[in-house]
Amino acid sequence: METSGYLSNSFDGLHSNDEDDDEMVDIAGATLDFSSSDDVPPLCSGDFDEFSSRRVSMNGHGPSQMVDPLDDPLPGVGTYEDFNTIDWVREKSKDRDRHREITHKSRESTVALLLRISDAFSGWLLMLLVGLMAGALAGGIDIAAHWLTDMKEGVCLNGFWFNHEHCCWTSSEPTFQERDRCPQWQSWAELFSGTSTGALAYSLNYLMYILWALLFSFLAVTLVRAFAPYACGSGIPEIKTILSGFIIRGYLGKWTLITKTITLVLAVSSGLSLGKEGPLVHVACCCANILCHLFTKYRKNEAKRREVLSAAAAVGVSVAFGAPIGGVLFSLEEVSYYFPLKTLWRSFFAALVAAFTLRSINPFGNSRLVLFYVEFHAPWHLVELAPFILLGIFGGLWGALFIRANIAWCRIRKTTRLGHYSVVEVVLVTGLTALLAFPNSYTRMSGSELISELFNDCTLLDSSQLCGYKQLPNISDTGVGNTLGDRPAGEALYTALWQLALALLFKMMITVITFGMKVPSGLFIPSMAIGAIAGRLLGVAMEQLAYYNHDSLIFKGWCSQGADCITPGLYAMVGAAACLGGVTRMTVSLVVIMFELTGGLEYIVPLMAATMTSKWVADAFGREGIYEAHIRLNGYPFLEPKEEFEQSSLAVDVMRPRRADPALATLTQDGMNVGEVEALVESTHYSGFPVVVSQESQRLVGFVLRRDLLISIDNARKRQEGVVSASQVVFTEHTPPLPPEAPPPLRLRGIVDLSPFTVTDHTAMDITVDIFRKLGLRQCLVTHNVRLLGIITKKDILKHMAQISNRDPDSILFN
Amino acid sequence: METSGYLSNSFDGLHSNDEDDDEMVDIAGATLDFSSSDDVPPLCSGDFDEFSSRRVSMNGHGPSQMVDPLDDPLPGVGTYEDFNTIDWVREKSKDRDRHREITHKSRESTVALLLRISDAFSGWLLMLLVGLMAGALAGGIDIAAHWLTDMKEGVCLNGFWFNHEHCCWTSSEPTFQERDRCPQWQSWAELFSGTSTGALAYSLNYLMYILWALLFSFLAVTLVRAFAPYACGSGIPEIKTILSGFIIRGYLGKWTLITKTITLVLAVSSGLSLGKEGPLVHVACCCANILCHLFTKYRKNEAKRREVLSAAAAVGVSVAFGAPIGGVLFSLEEVSYYFPLKTLWRSFFAALVAAFTLRSINPFGNSRLVLFYVEFHAPWHLVELAPFILLGIFGGLWGALFIRANIAWCRIRKTTRLGHYSVVEVVLVTGLTALLAFPNSYTRMSGSELISELFNDCTLLDSSQLCGYKQLPNISDTGVGNTLGDRPAGEALYTALWQLALALLFKMMITVITFGMKVPSGLFIPSMAIGAIAGRLLGVAMEQLAYYNHDSLIFKGWCSQGADCITPGLYAMVGAAACLGGVTRMTVSLVVIMFELTGGLEYIVPLMAATMTSKWVADAFGREGIYEAHIRLNGYPFLEPKEEFEQSSLAVDVMRPRRADPALATLTQDGMNVGEVEALVESTHYSGFPVVVSQESQRLVGFVLRRDLLISIDNARKRQEGVVSASQVVFTEHTPPLPPEAPPPLRLRGIVDLSPFTVTDHTAMDITVDIFRKLGLRQCLVTHNVRLLGIITKKDILKHMAQISNRDPDSILFN
Repeated sequence: METSGYLSNSFDGLHSNDEDDDEMVDIAGATLDFSSSDDVPPLCSGDFDEFSSRRVSMNGHGPSQMVDPLDDPLPGVGTYEDFNTIDWVREKSKDRDRHREITHKSRESTVALLLRISDAFSGWLLMLLVGLMAGALAGGIDIAAHWLTDMKEGVCLNGFWFNHEHCCWTSSEPTFQERDRCPQWQSWAELFSGTSTGALAYSLNYLMYILWALLFSFLAVTLVRAFAPYACGSGIPEIKTILSGFIIRGYLGKWTLITKTITLVLAVSSGLSLGKEGPLVHVACCCANILCHLFTKYRKNEAKRREVLSAAAAVGVSVAFGAPIGGVLFSLEEVSYYFPLKTLWRSFFAALVAAFTLRSINPFGNSRLVLFYVEFHAPWHLVELAPFILLGIFGGLWGALFIRANIAWCRIRKTTRLGHYSVVEVVLVTGLTALLAFPNSYTRMSGSELISELFNDCTLLDSSQLCGYKQLPNISDTGVGNTLGDRPAGEALYTALWQLALALLFKMMITVITFGMKVPSGLFIPSMAIGAIAGRLLGVAMEQLAYYNHDSLIFKGWCSQGADCITPGLYAMVGAAACLGGVTRMTVSLVVIMFELTGGLEYIVPLMAATMTSKWVADAFGREGIYEAHIRLNGYPFLEPKEEFEQSSLAVDVMRPRRADPALATLTQDGMNVGEVEALVESTHYSGFPVVVSQESQRLVGFVLRRDLLISIDNARKRQEGVVSASQVVFTEHTPPLPPEAPPPLRLRGIVDLSPFTVTDHTAMDITVDIFRKLGLRQCLVTHNVRLLGIITKKDILKHMAQISNRDPDSILFN
Repeated sequence: METSGYLSNSFDGLHSNDEDDDEMVDIAGATLDFSSSDDVPPLCSGDFDEFSSRRVSMNGHGPSQMVDPLDDPLPGVGTYEDFNTIDWVREKSKDRDRHREITHKSRESTVALLLRISDAFSGWLLMLLVGLMAGALAGGIDIAAHWLTDMKEGVCLNGFWFNHEHCCWTSSEPTFQERDRCPQWQSWAELFSGTSTGALAYSLNYLMYILWALLFSFLAVTLVRAFAPYACGSGIPEIKTILSGFIIRGYLGKWTLITKTITLVLAVSSGLSLGKEGPLVHVACCCANILCHLFTKYRKNEAKRREVLSAAAAVGVSVAFGAPIGGVLFSLEEVSYYFPLKTLWRSFFAALVAAFTLRSINPFGNSRLVLFYVEFHAPWHLVELAPFILLGIFGGLWGALFIRANIAWCRIRKTTRLGHYSVVEVVLVTGLTALLAFPNSYTRMSGSELISELFNDCTLLDSSQLCGYKQLPNISDTGVGNTLGDRPAGEALYTALWQLALALLFKMMITVITFGMKVPSGLFIPSMAIGAIAGRLLGVAMEQLAYYNHDSLIFKGWCSQGADCITPGLYAMVGAAACLGGVTRMTVSLVVIMFELTGGLEYIVPLMAATMTSKWVADAFGREGIYEAHIRLNGYPFLEPKEEFEQSSLAVDVMRPRRADPALATLTQDGMNVGEVEALVESTHYSGFPVVVSQESQRLVGFVLRRDLLISIDNARKRQEGVVSASQVVFTEHTPPLPPEAPPPLRLRGIVDLSPFTVTDHTAMDITVDIFRKLGLRQCLVTHNVRLLGIITKKDILKHMAQISNRDPDSILFN
């Protein structure tokens, strides 16, 4: 199939290495002058959707042949332009054809049977590879980020490649309390000035902290700009768009992967208010996309590839949170568009493989997959639902506020000159962050360390400030002093609370301007940190309230003196879930991820109450989560599968041409010649044309795509003898009788889609939108009493929806 | 909307209580003579799809009015016949219309706004109620079944309503070992003969055991036959069919609920080889359906109701296994057809509520939701994957064999006279089961007790036979005697193994004839028990192998002498998962349910390996799970969403009429009179007719359903003055000019679906099947160059698929 060449001469010599050059397609695109490529952002090299370039290039060396277009599709026919929507129906039926062929052949020979079996298992093998690769990368990122983060504070004398913890493992003083302090690890002040105390040492450490942070972030943004502009941000909005059936070449390519992996480590280490969770999803999807190239089945089919990408999204969350089930549900709920049950099972498999790979790497040295795994033991009481719901309200409000503020800021960045100074911006924000973060120990530590500390329950021996409770003097009196009962707060705890409150304000503000900069930046950790701080504050407040008022009406009966009735760590966890829920609008997956972090069914109800409240509160201010908001900001053609279409419009209101417009441009099945067809195509910018029996009857025969038509005509003019502008273009099965002196006709039935989707003009738009969503259509024809009236594309629908909600319909940029 | 009455006289007086009489609809059905009701099994009263009867009866008392059919739909129009397929598109757009109306009204008044808010929250309230009710019922069933099961063995002297365990709680001898033995609990032999040992006592207990078993099962089958024939079986196949958009009136009605709850307790207690898990799903769905009647939104819309039922299926599994997440995934993977994300979240909520309700009832007295919750501590080794995969192969083989044997037996029951003797059959099987089960302690105990015992790990103090290991003499030598290292098997264990092997054979055979009898019967527990026995046997074998060959190549390095390297309980669990997977072909949900039972990520890999192997092995013998096989046996029109349509046929090959058949019966939009329409409808058995511009052009205008047409004509003849057989039937918007002496025309545009789905004759069937599945269509029209050619219904597709796989196409019974 691949060895025959049609476009050989035209492309010969242009292309020798067929791996990752997108210019191939760009050249083809330029030659054929596709109108839709006007608004395309600058591409970086990479190989998402390399399929088409590969098809072209692989066919670029064969002998020139005369082939009837009916027998075998032309190369390029059936592929897509960059920044265009795919046709799910076509892709899926292409895969079914392929599968049928393999099944059919397998009855003939043993080799073919073996091929069929290997084909059946290639999906599983691919999943295994994706899991292994993503797990290994995540482990590497964790270790590297840990090391670089510690680098900001000091260096290990045994070898600079040890992080703080590893450095002290080899120390001869392995007492528990002093585990973090060992002579081998020296802060920069100790190294330079020989002392670790005093104003000078503090200033030195402060300075080094800022310098390292600036270096890391400068490196990160420079690398992103130089090698892969697509490596910035969290990547989830784009992945959602790609999974819904959109093409962004290079977005999941190998340059993006390499750059994102390195810059993610740098960005996380720089101390910016961002996390690695979202970008890990992007990294996992890149792995999947690259590994897809090993299997023809996935390389050649956009729909099949998206199944793998859906599973990869699950893998990303699985390694980010150590939550394989939560990851699968995240993929199902948040990112995926087409998620058949087979994918569910495979995603689960890949997510497990990745989790176990990561565990065997053991990046945190605690046999856990995340830094903030917790185990609570105390039960919660029904009365506590009130503060949990309060946290939910906080999370919802914060989520709504954050989305508005962040989108407003990103819009400024996008529309003003600020966008041109991304390096300066990143360096400035990093400097500001480092300057403000260092003095406060809770902002100085990394996001996941902070969350880990806030989630943890205090033990009696705990030396952290957050556990600075007064030791009860009457241990022997009450007999409860040895348990972990609620105790009054001491000085240290009050200091910690003040610091936390300041950290909360700081994080809330800095996150708004950080998310969306030109470095890899995830939103999960900052959101969770904000929620965890708020939750911990409320938790300690509740604890003190309970301690001093244990005889009041609220606490009586379930919280006696000295009992451990309030767990501030649980409040932190609930707060984290609430804030994350408010920002992303995740529901089930969020609760399941949190459930996998705690491992107990017990705490699902508080988590659920907070998440639910948070979602409702946030939805009251705007139904979009942060990812949908960013998708809209970028003008991607994303048809939200969750949102119901509420309007009562009909298909006739949405279709093009509008009443005042000129009639729809159609091709007749045998009444036009090559020149006329070319003129028609030139004069319009439509990406497809209906084929009708005759212009008078407007009786629909089929639909032909602009790209396919242009490629076919172009090819025929070059390859097929006698095809000139006067040649008749024939879309029918049998060539009609032609005058004897006429040039040979150009038969193009092969590229006509004979079963285009049609709806009547009376079809309600809600049904039409449903059809588009469920079947993944690109366009749909509108008829009235079987007379062709117009056409509805996905873009038309999105524009219509934008208009309804008083947004600018021209914000939808792509087809 | 509901107070105006159209059918008042015709139905007046027939109906006073509108609660649960289905005869209403039957009468209407009989009057209108719908042809599809030929093969309908006997109905029992109940109230699934009471909607239509309610509509009719509520309209049966209003004043007679003359209403233009265009303004408001006639009662009955838009509802469905029993044993018919619903139209998802119509239901969903009905709901959207309703929602739009509420949203629109809410801007006008505060009351309407409150109504809108209450409407938005009614879904959550309903879920809460479903969770509470199903959880409470499950708790009641557990307690009652526990009590009745113990009743077979003896009675509590303190009060017959205590079960064995409760009876001994109050005992004064609460030593751990003797917890089960207390003077208050007397076996029947003790009660009657005063002695608990000797042949006489044994025979007495044996006899009483059989007698109680016979009594329980006789009561169960009699109650099912008398009150609700739909209460038999597991119910999952029918629920799958209902959720895919089929109507079975009474299947989820209150009589079914009451009968199923009671008879389930009896059937479980009778000692038959069946479980309560499947029927609990049915019970939860009945609860949901009944509670739907409290909310207009769900009562009146078949699609919305099915969302609630999907959630209820999750609730059922959640209370059956104490696995809320597993339940939601079960519903998603196994039973549901249309599962939007909103439903996912609500299902999860309902499943949690139910789990917590059940936990607060605490039926097992261990604060767990299931009897067989386990916690393992020992890790597993990679080498053990081999026996796990072996268990997977066993599970797959058993699953495939069981499905074939059970379906063959059910077919015999269905087609021969055996089906008429269901009471005798149940009593005979119970007698046989009791007779064979009593002598073997592993078959005598209930299925879940057996599983619990097999899953559990041996502790040193364990007195059960399964832990009859030899005490190691050299405790002080090796220093490991006190741990739970592997030990050599003792006499007691060998006896237990023999008994288990016999129990395995017995269970395998008796389950085949038990499943499908006229009592409520679930398949989860028997399947799991069979797998658990096989797994435990293999586990003990491995343990002994490791003990005696700890220096061999296989065990060297990870299993030193005296170490606890093999956990036979884990093998039992893996075996249980494998067998359940082989029978039901569940994947993710099964692993997650098992994960929730153990609570550790550690054991997911063995479970996954076994489940995957089991599915692959079983699929090699036939791709249908037991539920799909039963659906097919019953001839329900179920379009499997998982199966790919592999054939390359086109729409034109499947559509009716076939080439040799007479042309399609169509109505013209204004060229027929009432008599002609009636004659056309009489002469065919189609459930709908396309409306065309004229018979010559066959240009499609719309589609009208037989039921709607008949109700409208019937109503018009009675209500509308001057409508006689000669009246013209007009489907157009404007009445064409009529001769002055003509009777007034009958305008029926209101019942025409102006946007029927159409495909072209060239559309591949795989795409068509996809459209049917994803949009939930009932029928689809086929056109060629916009000329109407034919029609494809869901039944046609199923018949076509049956034909392809060499099955009898007439096995598809319903529309």
